Amino acid sequence: MQTLIIVAHPEVDNSPTQQFLQASLPVTNNDAVTWHDLNAIFTETGWQRETELALLKKAERIIWQFPLYWYSAPAILKQWQDAIFTGEVSQYEFLAGKELGLVVSVGERLTSYQAGAREQFTLSEILRPYQAFAQKLDWRYLPPLVIEQFGYLTEPAKQQLLIDYQQFLTLAQPATFAQKGQWLLAQLQQVTTNAKLTQETLTLVQEQLMTQLADYQELQSQLQEIRRGEHD
Amino acid sequence: MQTLIIVAHPEVDNSPTQQFLQASLPVTNNDAVTWHDLNAIFTETGWQRETELALLKKAERIIWQFPLYWYSAPAILKQWQDAIFTGEVSQYEFLAGKELGLVVSVGERLTSYQAGAREQFTLSEILRPYQAFAQKLDWRYLPPLVIEQFGYLTEPAKQQLLIDYQQFLTLAQPATFAQKGQWLLAQLQQVTTNAKLTQETLTLVQEQLMTQLADYQELQSQLQEIRRGEHD
Repeated sequence: MQTLIIVAHPEVDNSPTQQFLQASLPVTNNDAVTWHDLNAIFTETGWQRETELALLKKAERIIWQFPLYWYSAPAILKQWQDAIFTGEVSQYEFLAGKELGLVVSVGERLTSYQAGAREQFTLSEILRPYQAFAQKLDWRYLPPLVIEQFGYLTEPAKQQLLIDYQQFLTLAQPATFAQKGQWLLAQLQQVTTNAKLTQETLTLVQEQLMTQLADYQELQSQLQEIRRGEHD
Repeated sequence: MQTLIIVAHPEVDNSPTQQFLQASLPVTNNDAVTWHDLNAIFTETGWQRETELALLKKAERIIWQFPLYWYSAPAILKQWQDAIFTGEVSQYEFLAGKELGLVVSVGERLTSYQAGAREQFTLSEILRPYQAFAQKLDWRYLPPLVIEQFGYLTEPAKQQLLIDYQQFLTLAQPATFAQKGQWLLAQLQQVTTNAKLTQETLTLVQEQLMTQLADYQELQSQLQEIRRGEHD
């Protein structure tokens, strides 16, 4: 699957979150994942509209990756949207069927985003304009990957984020339990020839895999028990 | 009341809607209404943050006026938001208690903005990021003034829009029936010395006023009937 990550951040180089995500990109043999920093390629005349549209066309999954500033992406994403998607919506029919996945980092706790809490509104509500965009273009809107208070993440939590992020970029979404397990197995195989994944990652992947497999087997035997009960 | 109209449109001069709204500004003796075109005052170095904050401080009602592009304002509004409201939210406590009123023009029919219809989501949902901003800064979010398909408006509908717009800028919101009536009366008085309102507007205002007064009297007498019935 071809994934295009459109990064909307005013200063990717100075953002620990973006730096972490960039370092966490999965290693692929066929340029299956493209990192596309809107700020880096912005010139005085804006973006090359045809180039951008061609990139979108090539991708199956389009990621919009940004920190939440005032309940939406930094302005550069909207600049890009307004500049690339001009005129009649029907022009963009050739992009129908894409997937749109948001990778959103937030400075607040996730529990703040609910009625009665600090932010009052859920992230589903706050991100509605992006969902509406996807709906309008006949793109499939994926459940966003939300990164909560990156600065406070522990190392194990960061390692988990690395896995979640790689899966969000490359796995069928929403991923089933079996798909996540298969993905982990494939990672393990790749790791033997790939220096980019660290020893810690390898250990974590192995632990996760073993836990998941144990859970899976437990679930399977419970299911058998239930079925046996049904036929008694 | 001091009202600051923050206009977020890439080309105000080429927008029939914005031109109409600009021509519809109420005439006030004390600069009570300020037209503030973000694009016109944008320079290479952006905006003067202190100047913008001072303008906001002076205003009691702040209007964000824009066409809906891809389910939010044109990028320039977010650029301005991100540039002016930097850093900790607590810095902006001196602006608490402002009113935020959106004047939003849409190219679709209003009935499109509902579950099952073309746009799927209500405007209340789509505009949630602005409501969340107001909530965060302790500003009162007013029910937006939505301008539906301006290009198709008939002359009487435009005249009605003029009145709605002027009331949205200057009247307590949401306005009661009595307040709207009083506003119309005040307009009628002003019109005798004010050349800016045209004869058609005058006639319309008079007609509206008479209809409203008739409605009001009808309502009053119905109310009396009901009360009489209650005491029988």
